[in-house]
Amino acid sequence: YHVDAQCLIDNAVDLKVQAAVSSIVSSTLAKAKLFCQNVSARGALVSCPGGYKATACSCGMACGSWDIRSDATCHCQCGGIDWTSARCCKIGVE
Amino acid sequence: YHVDAQCLIDNAVDLKVQAAVSSIVSSTLAKAKLFCQNVSARGALVSCPGGYKATACSCGMACGSWDIRSDATCHCQCGGIDWTSARCCKIGVE
Amino acid sequence: YHVDAQCLIDNAVDLKVQAAVSSIVSSTLAKAKLFCQNVSARGALVSCPGGYKATACSCGMACGSWDIRSDATCHCQCGGIDWTSARCCKIGVE
Repeated sequence: YHVDAQCLIDNAVDLKVQAAVSSIVSSTLAKAKLFCQNVSARGALVSCPGGYKATACSCGMACGSWDIRSDATCHCQCGGIDWTSARCCKIGVE
Repeated sequence: YHVDAQCLIDNAVDLKVQAAVSSIVSSTLAKAKLFCQNVSARGALVSCPGGYKATACSCGMACGSWDIRSDATCHCQCGGIDWTSARCCKIGVE
Repeated sequence: YHVDAQCLIDNAVDLKVQAAVSSIVSSTLAKAKLFCQNVSARGALVSCPGGYKATACSCGMACGSWDIRSDATCHCQCGGIDWTSARCCKIGVE
């Protein structure tokens, strides 16, 4: 009996696990979203909140020359910049 | 017999589940990708399609001053803007 | 006996699988992160490394007019552009 029971369990578990896992994984993954926010400040520098990365920067004075430092800080390069804004995004689960 | 069988099942299930789950989860997660597209329009405003978030905006007239409204709408701030383009991204599974 | 054992297995497996899967999936999903880097080059064109998508472009000469080609190449449109930079992001597991 013993071997038969083991085999019974193995098959049952295999089938059950595969089906359950795939459906749960897909449904959970479907809840993974891109969360973004804007952060602005006077002057030429602004940083995203913790956990967020900067995906782009916007600058005052129509300036399109900027760089991102340490993954989350926007720096506007033109002279006399009055404001800097960062677009900050991260992955989260809804 | 009853207790022994229960224990047998528990162990078998635990091992099976852990192994199967981890491999399926990792392989599914590996399929999670960043899907992006460009959307452009005449004038100073353009919105990303449903489900997408704007990660940046580009503007005509060399203008680098823009803002993102309600997560998905690009607005170019300089005067007399002829076109506006949004970079729109979301998370999907390949 | 046979039917009773089958039912025993089914229930045990179902409970085990659901619990294990959900916890592993959530903990794995929590490791999914947005990985970003900057890529710069002389001139008006620069491309992200393989697997990365461009989320935005920055240009020399204060130019804010750019476009993204084939998902990963930044093109700065103003005349006489001295440098172009791409913000490149992808999804990865920490």
